[in-house]
Amino acid sequence: MKECRIIIMGFGAVGQGIARAISLKKAMIKQDYGVELKVVAAADSSSSAICQEGLDEMMLVHIKNSEGRLSAYRDCGTNMSGLDVLDAVEYDLLMEATPTNIETAEPALSLTLKAFEQGKDVVTSNKGHLALKFSEVTQAAEDNGVEFKYEASVGGAMPIINFTRDTLSSCGIESIVGILNGTTNYILSRMTSEGSSYDITLKESQELGIAETNPTQDVEGIDAACKTVILANSLLGIDATYDDVEVEGISNITSQAIELAKKDGYLIKLIAEVSPKNLKVAPRLVKMGSSYDVSGTLNMATIKTDLAGEITVMGLGAGSLETASAMLTDVISILKTKY
Amino acid sequence: MKECRIIIMGFGAVGQGIARAISLKKAMIKQDYGVELKVVAAADSSSSAICQEGLDEMMLVHIKNSEGRLSAYRDCGTNMSGLDVLDAVEYDLLMEATPTNIETAEPALSLTLKAFEQGKDVVTSNKGHLALKFSEVTQAAEDNGVEFKYEASVGGAMPIINFTRDTLSSCGIESIVGILNGTTNYILSRMTSEGSSYDITLKESQELGIAETNPTQDVEGIDAACKTVILANSLLGIDATYDDVEVEGISNITSQAIELAKKDGYLIKLIAEVSPKNLKVAPRLVKMGSSYDVSGTLNMATIKTDLAGEITVMGLGAGSLETASAMLTDVISILKTKY
Repeated sequence: MKECRIIIMGFGAVGQGIARAISLKKAMIKQDYGVELKVVAAADSSSSAICQEGLDEMMLVHIKNSEGRLSAYRDCGTNMSGLDVLDAVEYDLLMEATPTNIETAEPALSLTLKAFEQGKDVVTSNKGHLALKFSEVTQAAEDNGVEFKYEASVGGAMPIINFTRDTLSSCGIESIVGILNGTTNYILSRMTSEGSSYDITLKESQELGIAETNPTQDVEGIDAACKTVILANSLLGIDATYDDVEVEGISNITSQAIELAKKDGYLIKLIAEVSPKNLKVAPRLVKMGSSYDVSGTLNMATIKTDLAGEITVMGLGAGSLETASAMLTDVISILKTKY
Repeated sequence: MKECRIIIMGFGAVGQGIARAISLKKAMIKQDYGVELKVVAAADSSSSAICQEGLDEMMLVHIKNSEGRLSAYRDCGTNMSGLDVLDAVEYDLLMEATPTNIETAEPALSLTLKAFEQGKDVVTSNKGHLALKFSEVTQAAEDNGVEFKYEASVGGAMPIINFTRDTLSSCGIESIVGILNGTTNYILSRMTSEGSSYDITLKESQELGIAETNPTQDVEGIDAACKTVILANSLLGIDATYDDVEVEGISNITSQAIELAKKDGYLIKLIAEVSPKNLKVAPRLVKMGSSYDVSGTLNMATIKTDLAGEITVMGLGAGSLETASAMLTDVISILKTKY
């Protein structure tokens, strides 16, 4: 039986989702693809659990939630983290789920490049290194002859990158227009349904855990702009970085503006546009009842093609297990081609 | 340079779309996948054009439209058709686009099985043989070690089969619910927007070329039921045939019923449901503004998964070039794995 030895780097919501998804699906993957997945290390920001014979995925989740640190894993806990972990264990594939940093791209950038140099495949949910250095990172993967997959970096569980590449491969892609941030869509949907102000709605969303304590990345459009860059590079072949995107967030949207739009049959949505002419994230009016009329934390994207017309896809843009499922699909596609 | 020699069988709207799509995309495919596509034969119901050195795709379309028969193709025209063509030329891949026959599955069934026996790959848009004999046909492909792809048989340009298999491969599929017939969706949308009766709307749709002269397959739900069976077999592993689907069409829907639904915020749609418990096509009430609220000839499907939640996809369910694009994507996926 072939084996794929995995390091999970980052053990927040997504990292824990990966562990749960592997636990749920490793029997299916063994059966259908003939490969045994084995988690040989998992690391949070300051500690890790490492075991060449394999760790119990659900035990990792349990330890993290009960003890706060993976170092509490019996007989396998260490105080190592980050790059050191990549040297401490033999592995085949890095599943990278550290938090996105749009200033430095770290630690994702160093981790990813080191894994490539070690000849290892990488699956990531991180946006930072892709938004800041897309061509450098993908080129490094190519130079080292390894696989690099990042479906989960855009749209969470909503398939968009593999979807466009694999199932629309006969088509030229002219543009992608969509709602790529669930938090802002939730805030705008709620302002629309309740007539409430931006400030109050943001606060409620924070209380519900939908918006973060520091909501800047979401509400100022930064998160959506990162995704815009990733789609531009990966699907339209546009060599762009984060600074090339024109960005406007939703913090200036008033309940009056939403009310006025509503009277004319429109909604205000934070729309990302990816086309050779425009890389842009901004609030826009969309028709009620159109495919852009999705509420809550849903993401959607309409892909305009030359042969197949417009194709729209819609799904959950976030969520622990949901995002992890996109990463596991990336792993499976690597298993199919390389194992 | 590797070569893929293609027979196009059936030269109506879809067959002509295939020729146009190949003409538009063969340079891209040569560049990106290193394979030269060459159409060595194209056949309509009573004649064909055959040339081992390759036919001009746009000339085939021109001849068919100006002369009505492919036999008028200079130096290459023949009076052969159907099975004989598969013996008359050396080829690698059959693109099968003959009309669906839900009684006999012919000529698709014989053509496909013969191509398999000859060791050739097949890409089809036909529903008949899949709806009546799914396991027999897919088993024959496996026994002969050839590829068999049928994305275009469901949803036209809307990706659903490859989409679910490739980009949701980590997920278990619990159900698929959607609108799989564009003609009935057009009729119901128009009855809703105009308040017109079924009979008048059907007649108008026929005049516009959206409904066929004999509309039975569409309006009685037969077409959607075929697609239901194909999805059940291919994506949920349910060994079913056409007779296992409970089918009710739209011909009994009155404008009064639509009006009543509308008052409560509902629409009437012809919904196909694919789940282990239910294989069913029937008119159902759906909420206005929900993802089932798509108008015109659009198709949509919501795929319920265990890990990724609900994913919805939407696209053009018909159209010559659109359907051909799905077939060409199937061809590319064969090129990627076999060439």
